[in-house]
Amino acid sequence: MAAPCVVGVDMGGTKLLAGAVDENLNVHHRALRSMTGLDRDAILDAAVDAVEEVRESMEGAVSAAGFGIPCTIDRQRGIAVQAVNLPLLDVAFGDVMAERLGLPAFVDNDANAAALAEHRFGAARGGRHTVMLTVGTGIGGGLVLDDRLYHGSQGAAAELGHVVVEMDGPPCQGNCPNRGCLEAVASGVALAREGQAAAVRFPDSALGRAAASGRAVTGALVTELAHDGCEVARDTIALIGRRLGVGIASYVNTFDPDFVVLGGGVLGAGELLLAPAREEMVRRALPPARDTVRVVAARFGGEAGMVGAAVLALDGVA
Amino acid sequence: MAAPCVVGVDMGGTKLLAGAVDENLNVHHRALRSMTGLDRDAILDAAVDAVEEVRESMEGAVSAAGFGIPCTIDRQRGIAVQAVNLPLLDVAFGDVMAERLGLPAFVDNDANAAALAEHRFGAARGGRHTVMLTVGTGIGGGLVLDDRLYHGSQGAAAELGHVVVEMDGPPCQGNCPNRGCLEAVASGVALAREGQAAAVRFPDSALGRAAASGRAVTGALVTELAHDGCEVARDTIALIGRRLGVGIASYVNTFDPDFVVLGGGVLGAGELLLAPAREEMVRRALPPARDTVRVVAARFGGEAGMVGAAVLALDGVA
Repeated sequence: MAAPCVVGVDMGGTKLLAGAVDENLNVHHRALRSMTGLDRDAILDAAVDAVEEVRESMEGAVSAAGFGIPCTIDRQRGIAVQAVNLPLLDVAFGDVMAERLGLPAFVDNDANAAALAEHRFGAARGGRHTVMLTVGTGIGGGLVLDDRLYHGSQGAAAELGHVVVEMDGPPCQGNCPNRGCLEAVASGVALAREGQAAAVRFPDSALGRAAASGRAVTGALVTELAHDGCEVARDTIALIGRRLGVGIASYVNTFDPDFVVLGGGVLGAGELLLAPAREEMVRRALPPARDTVRVVAARFGGEAGMVGAAVLALDGVA
Repeated sequence: MAAPCVVGVDMGGTKLLAGAVDENLNVHHRALRSMTGLDRDAILDAAVDAVEEVRESMEGAVSAAGFGIPCTIDRQRGIAVQAVNLPLLDVAFGDVMAERLGLPAFVDNDANAAALAEHRFGAARGGRHTVMLTVGTGIGGGLVLDDRLYHGSQGAAAELGHVVVEMDGPPCQGNCPNRGCLEAVASGVALAREGQAAAVRFPDSALGRAAASGRAVTGALVTELAHDGCEVARDTIALIGRRLGVGIASYVNTFDPDFVVLGGGVLGAGELLLAPAREEMVRRALPPARDTVRVVAARFGGEAGMVGAAVLALDGVA
C-alpha cells in the first residue's frame, strides 16, 4: 500500500502538472497534460484525467485534491470570476472537481498556491512576508503577509503581473485591458517576442541561426541557447531580468518583504535571469528594504504551483 | 477643565500640523509650523514647540503625543532609517520627543498614521483592506490589510509613492535612487512642474497670466486657478490625476482593496483630480476588483496625518 497522499494540480496557460504528494511533500507520481487551445470542457476533462492517472498510480490512497488555477476566484461563491489565460470564467471549479472526482477538492489561484508552498516549505522558509512571482506564459503573483496568504476583498489579490511598469507601454495580454504591465514586458511571451526580434537583428548568433533553420523562437529555446553560451540569447534573458527587477523594486518598496521568490517556467534561465533582476532592484529600491530582502528562485521550481496546490489539499483535510 | 486629549502631529516635507484631539476625534486646537529648509535640530525644536503650544491651549490636559513622520522607522530600534523629505535619518524620534516633552510619545510613518485614521474613522470605515496615498510634496503610502496596519519586515512598508509607473521616466526626488516612481510624476512637486510648463505653453490662460505677473506657479496656485475655472490649470490637474490612476490600477490589481483613499495637500483639487484618477484606474485595472473598489478622498483631508498620529497616541495609552 502506497503512502497516503493528496493530489496537487497546477493548471497553467499552456500545461497542466498533477502530482501525488505526501505529507512530507515528497512527490510520488507526476502527470502532464497540454492545455494549449483547449476549450472549457476539454480543460476540465484534462484535469479529471490527470488526477485519475495519479490516483491510479497511488493505488487509490488519495484523500483530497488541490488545484492552483490561473484565475481570480470569488472565495464566497467558489467561482472563477476572472481568467486571463484559461477559459474558466464562471466555472465553480472546486465543486465541479469534487463531484467528478468524488474527492474533497480545494482551489486557489495558482500563484497563491505557489507562494504558500515556498513560504512554508521552500525558498522563503523562515520569513514572515513573502512576495511570489510565477513567470510563465503570464506573470502570476502571490502574497504571504504576516505568515498568511493574502486574498484581498474578493479573493482577487495579488495580480502582481498586472502592475504597470511602463504607463505608455505595449498592451497587456489575455483579457487584461491595461498597458505596460509587468506581464506585458517580462513574461515568457515577452521573452519569446524579444528573442524573435534579437534573432532577426543578430542573424549570425546561435539564436539567429536557430531561427533561420526553422526552429520556433520560444522562451525555452532562448533559455537553452543562453545556457549553451549564446551571448544574444543571454542578453535577451538579461533584458527580461532587468524588467522583472523594475517590478521587484516596486514590490520591495511596497512590502518590505523578507523574500521575493521567482518561479515558473521562465526561471529555467536561473541566475542568467535572477542576477540582472537583483541588480536592477538594488539600483532602484529604497533602503533599508533593498538591503535586506532576498530575491531567490523558487525551491520547487516549475513544481511550486503543483506542490502549493497539494498544500491547499493537505491543509483542507488536516 | 478641558476634555482629556492627546496631541497628534503630522510632520510633512514642507509643514508641520499639530492638533489636540479627544477620544471622539474632535480637534480642539491646531498649531502650524513651516518645515521648509529646516535642519534636524530646528525640526525637532519646531515639533516640541508646536506640541507645547497645543498643550498650553488645553491647560495641560494632554496624556500623550503621537507623531506621523515622513520616514521609514525601524520598529525594533525606534529609529528613522530612511527619510526622503526631512533630514531625520538615525534620529530616535519617539525617544527624543518623550524626553523633551515629558509625555508618552508614539511614532509611525505619516502615511501609515493617515491610513489608520481613515480606515478606522474616516473615508474607509467599514472596509477590511485600505490602500492610502498621501499626495503632498512627496507621495506617502499606508496599508491597512485585514484591519491591521501593515509594516513589513523592518517597518519600511508601504512606500507606495515609490512604485515605478514609467521605467525610463524622470529621476525621483529626495534620496530615492529610482526613476519613474509615482512620486516622480504625480506628487505636488510634479504638479507644480507641469503647471510651470503649461503656463509657458499657454501664456493667455489664467495660469499663464498669473505666472507672467510674477506669481510662483505652485501646486496650490494651479489648484486655485483650476477651481476658478482655468481650463489649462484643470487639464494640468487632470494629467496628474490620470498618472495617479495608473498607480492606483496597480494597487487595485495587487490588493483587491475595499478602498483607495487619497489625502494630502494635492487633494485640495478634489474631484478635478479624483475623477480622472478613477477613470484611468477603471480603464486599466482587472475585474472584479476594479468594479468594487472605491477611490475616495480622505475624510480628514489634509488633517488625516495629524488625526492618525493622534490615533497612534490614543491606542498607545489605551
